[in-house]
Amino acid sequence: MTTTVDESMRNGVDTLTLFATIDAVKSTPEAAKFQFRAQNEWISGTHNRGTIHDYFGVGSERVHERTFTFDADHPAVLVGRDNGPTPVEYVLHALAACLTAGLANIAAARGITLTEVRSTVTGDIDLNGILGLDPGVRNGYQNITVRFTVKGDAPAEKLRALVEQSRARSAVFDIITNQVPVTIEVETD
Amino acid sequence: MTTTVDESMRNGVDTLTLFATIDAVKSTPEAAKFQFRAQNEWISGTHNRGTIHDYFGVGSERVHERTFTFDADHPAVLVGRDNGPTPVEYVLHALAACLTAGLANIAAARGITLTEVRSTVTGDIDLNGILGLDPGVRNGYQNITVRFTVKGDAPAEKLRALVEQSRARSAVFDIITNQVPVTIEVETD
Repeated sequence: MTTTVDESMRNGVDTLTLFATIDAVKSTPEAAKFQFRAQNEWISGTHNRGTIHDYFGVGSERVHERTFTFDADHPAVLVGRDNGPTPVEYVLHALAACLTAGLANIAAARGITLTEVRSTVTGDIDLNGILGLDPGVRNGYQNITVRFTVKGDAPAEKLRALVEQSRARSAVFDIITNQVPVTIEVETD
Repeated sequence: MTTTVDESMRNGVDTLTLFATIDAVKSTPEAAKFQFRAQNEWISGTHNRGTIHDYFGVGSERVHERTFTFDADHPAVLVGRDNGPTPVEYVLHALAACLTAGLANIAAARGITLTEVRSTVTGDIDLNGILGLDPGVRNGYQNITVRFTVKGDAPAEKLRALVEQSRARSAVFDIITNQVPVTIEVETD
């Protein structure tokens, strides 16, 4: 029994539960429809605070075990007070987190034990765009580079294939490299 | 003098510094080239930790006043331990934060004093995509909706125009609604 449990748990991933979850969704595709949410409250200047708590998934309303709050701001050089990272830095964090979570799941599913996964994400941006000074410059990142270090009990080729498969199934990679329609509604009273 | 200072500070935005910064970039466009960065370290399963500290801008290497760290994870229903929001929730937070920061700056520049700005961002996602169960379903959000409540000393039409201008100049809105090229490099030893 102990051996079975150890075999199931790899990289901190409960692979039996992972496969059972995938099988459950296969038989009930509606369970995979999720809605994630973030609230935000303006504090002062470029400083605001986001709250993440509730979401919908597997057919019902759910809440995280805790309420997560995150401040965002601009640094002084961008006329803020540096009370938190800039919004665009959160995007880089989200990308690294998504690729890393997927990588650990995929490695577990493939029977590969990871010993280290680190990454640095860099995003180049020309603020002439958001400052409205050059109509030929986009507002967002011009390009993003992710540099991974991956170590585990598999040859380099198989470790690289984990990253490739994680990229192919990454929600945040898709959001950044493709287009998502965004609707904005405004209430003023 | 006091009146001048009060006039300059609106919504917590130092508009004199804001305009001076825009003028400075206008005469030295190179100053607007920034590189933002996030580091990530895998912890266990879908749990990993992001760190945001250094960046490049206005011609030199810079650091935030503090080092910001953020855990990301999946909830139990997605075979994680809920040690942090999911990566895709961070994307929603980034969008709200970017639109809100821009809105406060634009309101200040237009002489509008804000009293309240709140928003909720929702993102609909079908996990049949990332689970690899339906090749017709994308990995990322199918659509995102932002609902703003904006209050201040201007008519509804002008408050709505602030949101529209913030959208038109938002880095994160551009990243999500358009395409950003992402390069991934992997080291295995």
